[in-house]
Amino acid sequence: MEEDLTLLTDLYEFAMVDAYLDEGMQDEAVFSLFVRRLPSRRNFLLACGLEEALRYLETLRFTPAALDYLASLGRFSDRLLRYLERFHFSGDVCAVPEGTPVFAEEPLLEVVAPLPEAQLVETYLLNQVHLQTLAASKAVRVTEAAAGRPVMEFGVRRTHGVDAGMKVARAAFIAGVGATSNVRAGRRYGIPVAGTMAHSFVQAHEDELEAFRAFSSRFPETTLLVDTYDTLRGVQHVVRLARELGEAFQVRAVRLDSGDMLALSRATRQMLDEAGLQRVKLIASGNLDEDSIQRLLSQGAPIDSFGVGTSLGVSSDVPCLDMVYKLVAYAGKDRIKLSTSKVLYPGRKQVYRVEEHGVARKDVLARHGEMVPGRPLLRPMMREGKRVAGASPSLVEIQEHTRRELSRLPPEVRRLEPLNPPYRVEASPVVAWTREQLIEAWAATP
Amino acid sequence: MEEDLTLLTDLYEFAMVDAYLDEGMQDEAVFSLFVRRLPSRRNFLLACGLEEALRYLETLRFTPAALDYLASLGRFSDRLLRYLERFHFSGDVCAVPEGTPVFAEEPLLEVVAPLPEAQLVETYLLNQVHLQTLAASKAVRVTEAAAGRPVMEFGVRRTHGVDAGMKVARAAFIAGVGATSNVRAGRRYGIPVAGTMAHSFVQAHEDELEAFRAFSSRFPETTLLVDTYDTLRGVQHVVRLARELGEAFQVRAVRLDSGDMLALSRATRQMLDEAGLQRVKLIASGNLDEDSIQRLLSQGAPIDSFGVGTSLGVSSDVPCLDMVYKLVAYAGKDRIKLSTSKVLYPGRKQVYRVEEHGVARKDVLARHGEMVPGRPLLRPMMREGKRVAGASPSLVEIQEHTRRELSRLPPEVRRLEPLNPPYRVEASPVVAWTREQLIEAWAATP
Repeated sequence: MEEDLTLLTDLYEFAMVDAYLDEGMQDEAVFSLFVRRLPSRRNFLLACGLEEALRYLETLRFTPAALDYLASLGRFSDRLLRYLERFHFSGDVCAVPEGTPVFAEEPLLEVVAPLPEAQLVETYLLNQVHLQTLAASKAVRVTEAAAGRPVMEFGVRRTHGVDAGMKVARAAFIAGVGATSNVRAGRRYGIPVAGTMAHSFVQAHEDELEAFRAFSSRFPETTLLVDTYDTLRGVQHVVRLARELGEAFQVRAVRLDSGDMLALSRATRQMLDEAGLQRVKLIASGNLDEDSIQRLLSQGAPIDSFGVGTSLGVSSDVPCLDMVYKLVAYAGKDRIKLSTSKVLYPGRKQVYRVEEHGVARKDVLARHGEMVPGRPLLRPMMREGKRVAGASPSLVEIQEHTRRELSRLPPEVRRLEPLNPPYRVEASPVVAWTREQLIEAWAATP
Repeated sequence: MEEDLTLLTDLYEFAMVDAYLDEGMQDEAVFSLFVRRLPSRRNFLLACGLEEALRYLETLRFTPAALDYLASLGRFSDRLLRYLERFHFSGDVCAVPEGTPVFAEEPLLEVVAPLPEAQLVETYLLNQVHLQTLAASKAVRVTEAAAGRPVMEFGVRRTHGVDAGMKVARAAFIAGVGATSNVRAGRRYGIPVAGTMAHSFVQAHEDELEAFRAFSSRFPETTLLVDTYDTLRGVQHVVRLARELGEAFQVRAVRLDSGDMLALSRATRQMLDEAGLQRVKLIASGNLDEDSIQRLLSQGAPIDSFGVGTSLGVSSDVPCLDMVYKLVAYAGKDRIKLSTSKVLYPGRKQVYRVEEHGVARKDVLARHGEMVPGRPLLRPMMREGKRVAGASPSLVEIQEHTRRELSRLPPEVRRLEPLNPPYRVEASPVVAWTREQLIEAWAATP
């Protein structure tokens, strides 16, 4: 773990742990990480980020430098510092595998651990699961819109920093995106890397044809960017280059990056076809998102693949989720929270997906251990601070799991258009009753 | 620099550099980093991220491991790999100081360097300047809305990853936010850290009063979170605790995190005052942004300070900027690009801010070296790959610079409401004429 990632946490986590230790409150707690409600433009979310969460829990240790800083704040007890000095996470984690579709109120993961341990890890778990779930849930919409055509992720220049650039590439790959432009993510995760050329390359040359000639001489099977000055004149230059080179012309694609993409893609296709360049493909990019991709394809735009950058990289229409990490049980007792309009379901849980003929019909939010018909989604991933076998599949296995899980969703859930009423998630009678009991008990206290 | 941050770049940068080397194109290039147009909800942007950009340019080296990975892709020349092996950035940078308000089309920084060097650094410079400018530009709206009341940044749990958690805290501080909950940012940047308690602390106790008693016993001058079950019952518990403790009651504030914040803050203030607890302050948090803060204060909500998390952490209303890094000159010639509706202004530039009685009236986009009345904003920050003296002020100095620069903006520019027409930015006659000439020349080519 990077030296001081240990301090990537909200100050109040340390304060609460300090107080818990003061009171001797080290009994078992259950925290549940879930999204309180779905954004209106998301019919489901794709759970992602577990691998990093488990890595963190396994490796979290407090360095002397981190402890020195905490001590320097002058507000924490020696007891806390001594506790942190020998800290390691000793708890259990159940979670849905990465790439599993989830809905509002459904735990993506649950942490079962002594209260101070479970409390302390809140901030980082949320930070990472939030980011990757956000990105995967956006990316899956883009791949759905592309309807089988390859999608490349080009977002790193506008993702929110380095970590997002990496995790978005990973999450997008899980959601079915085929390649990333981010070289570091390619290396770290083994994701295919892709890229073409930039406008600056064309601009730096005296004219566009010369730029195309130079680039395809160095990279014969490349993609040429045709819109630096005027898209169709750019395509003419590609055609001229093909005539010049004859058999040696190996250019695989042209990239359109601006303008009226429907009209320009049609005209480009026609010009290329008339020049006998049927094998040259069209890549579209430039402020594309799932809506524009779906619209272009429904109008018959002859586009073969898509490069999607910013809208995917920052999940621009939904840049955050109402994701929380809530205490649902402590010391063997269920816990509630009443402050928002959405009242917390208390207790440790399991989510059952009820399927008919291989298609999901509804989910049931049940108590952990409660038997309900359906397929349980939460699995043990960590026991006593160590990952269990099978908790860390490869990225390709996760991508495959995602594809399988998506194929079991009803088609209307996968569509981009908001589903109304939403996919059904119901609380089991036991879960609903438990909540009512706790609310009544609370109301009866002075 | 972290081991492989060198690869945090788009693949095509390497491809273009490979081709440039192939062609011997190593003359001087000028790239300009700017925002093409302002989002409708931003009357100005606060430039931020320069420090990290300079650090990157000074330290960028390619490790053997990174070069091995690039070689393994099987698409790059030995010439490129040898070039990267001995790479160091040798160019110049001019930039506006961090914390300077900027507008559309105005360079935040310009890189002047041999073409391959200037090309290669595009992705990371954009990634970092984009994130911090985005965050500072959001944060300054929040501090403007708070109208002098302290603001704390609580966003790290939902920022897009670790790097964003750090850089948002830094950018927010520059924009006038007083503290962060992010302990790692507190340590790294020397920003004051702040935090209260979470709902889980209250939930873990048998009742709320007991939780308040325990927390304030450990942290007498703390803030108590009162909305876990019911805000006003929570406030009653604070009042009861004050009666119990008498002189020993040192609690400084209560935090309201949900519900009708106007009504609840008024009722809370009244209950506290009636109990003689005038000195206990009110902190508001919970999905606040600049609009809700401004509305609450305009309605007279008796709130003393604000905790702002997600909306600031992800700049939720504007999660990305149309920020680009464009070639404007190469080998002594100006360069244009025509593909979008916004045509690039060619050439190296200077921005002049024209002020009357200390208040900005308009900005002029001039050529570098062109003398125009007004205050030049771009300053030399790096020469031949080394920072110049004064290029790296302290965070407190940047915060001070920001405050000074903001005070010179017209009040209507600082307001949250969209300004129509926007603040005036005009191209100097020379800049406008140069562009026309280049467009005419392009149109006349075959």
